[in-house]
Amino acid sequence: MLPIEAHDISFRVRYGETDPMGIVHHAQYFAYFEMGRMELFRAQGGDYRDMEARGYLMVIVRAECDFKKPARFDDVLMLRTRVLKLSPAKLEHEYTLSRGQELLARARTVLACITRDGQVQRISEEVLFGQATV
Amino acid sequence: MLPIEAHDISFRVRYGETDPMGIVHHAQYFAYFEMGRMELFRAQGGDYRDMEARGYLMVIVRAECDFKKPARFDDVLMLRTRVLKLSPAKLEHEYTLSRGQELLARARTVLACITRDGQVQRISEEVLFGQATV
Amino acid sequence: MLPIEAHDISFRVRYGETDPMGIVHHAQYFAYFEMGRMELFRAQGGDYRDMEARGYLMVIVRAECDFKKPARFDDVLMLRTRVLKLSPAKLEHEYTLSRGQELLARARTVLACITRDGQVQRISEEVLFGQATV
Amino acid sequence: MLPIEAHDISFRVRYGETDPMGIVHHAQYFAYFEMGRMELFRAQGGDYRDMEARGYLMVIVRAECDFKKPARFDDVLMLRTRVLKLSPAKLEHEYTLSRGQELLARARTVLACITRDGQVQRISEEVLFGQATV
Repeated sequence: MLPIEAHDISFRVRYGETDPMGIVHHAQYFAYFEMGRMELFRAQGGDYRDMEARGYLMVIVRAECDFKKPARFDDVLMLRTRVLKLSPAKLEHEYTLSRGQELLARARTVLACITRDGQVQRISEEVLFGQATV
Repeated sequence: MLPIEAHDISFRVRYGETDPMGIVHHAQYFAYFEMGRMELFRAQGGDYRDMEARGYLMVIVRAECDFKKPARFDDVLMLRTRVLKLSPAKLEHEYTLSRGQELLARARTVLACITRDGQVQRISEEVLFGQATV
Repeated sequence: MLPIEAHDISFRVRYGETDPMGIVHHAQYFAYFEMGRMELFRAQGGDYRDMEARGYLMVIVRAECDFKKPARFDDVLMLRTRVLKLSPAKLEHEYTLSRGQELLARARTVLACITRDGQVQRISEEVLFGQATV
Repeated sequence: MLPIEAHDISFRVRYGETDPMGIVHHAQYFAYFEMGRMELFRAQGGDYRDMEARGYLMVIVRAECDFKKPARFDDVLMLRTRVLKLSPAKLEHEYTLSRGQELLARARTVLACITRDGQVQRISEEVLFGQATV
């Protein structure tokens, strides 16, 4: 079982992340979600750089997002990342992005684990943390 | 009715679009889909820059993508963009991204039309093309 | 005279900012420098979003960077931004990007101020801060 | 001696490459220059993907750009890339970015060649093309 199941991060929207409408470009949200996923993993005691070095690559197999309200340059956003489901075949996360009390977006991603040659690998605590957690 | 309902574009993956796994970063796919959508619109006789200047902004309200196989640096990709549904409230597109005969990704986006102040507007041919098409 | 002439920020390299060599893509550094410039401006009491709303747009007219050592995914970097020169015609900044004691990059940018129509404007404290500072 | 010393490419500005001022974000130019450099290399008979696979990584050690006029969404741009200097230690390129007869930017980059472990390597035709050219 994972020691932590949700994690919050807060960050400020950078100028170059916004588009001519003055709002964060939708592709950028997926980079935010990745950052949330990485920080959740770190908070759980994981080390993504080390996991990759050991030959376990996590790839996105599905991503979806509902955009409710636009985020703007200089906004301070709050991103909550939650593990929705962990199985030997995939790892699902759910994300909620907010500005104060306003919900801006809700998203979900599904990851699979592959080898450097692109073969699917079983996900285990050994894979994720380099050792089984207690 | 829209004069063209599907459009193909072909492009080469840029180096900076790929990540440490040597594959196209998943957020980048949504930028490809946007390019496909813009080119379909152009092929239909639309002018997105002009539409924005007239005060009609198209914003993404939902995006989803299934990633089947990774795209790599220097790959020549083919993107087919198709209008799935057009209603006064939204515009849906479907995308298939391929490398030769291999399907790499399948995606769908939903757009709404808003004013510069963020108010939802009705989508019409007047909005899209500056005049009704016959 | 500007109340603060140098400002330090610290941030972590995001996965999507790195390339197939596992290092931060060089174009990304300029986004970091922009973030440093914005944060220095904020620390000086400026509000870039408000300055744009008042019709003063700062555009880059020159950028240069010497890349000494690569930054990698997950690195925590320190960026020092310093105002090098402020004249009615331009605003120059200098940047040093480090990881601990190691200098990774040194850069310089020159900004000019333009109107929404692209006409060059004189830079003054009124422009930068909405009022003259004492 | 390199078989081709200059190469032109033409491409259209993508929506997500522009910022709230409606112009191409300055960091994006360096991604364009990289594309020009890659296409020049391809026109010379090189294969960058193969060169990396053989363990020769080209890294930017210096980049500089003078931005003359802004590029906008939907503009069709022309980029000319030229080899300025090739020595065993470095490879210099010069770029001119235009829209029709208007010069938008002029830039220069310097590349060095390193091993996967970050050691500097001598640049030769063997490195660049996998064999000496005649």
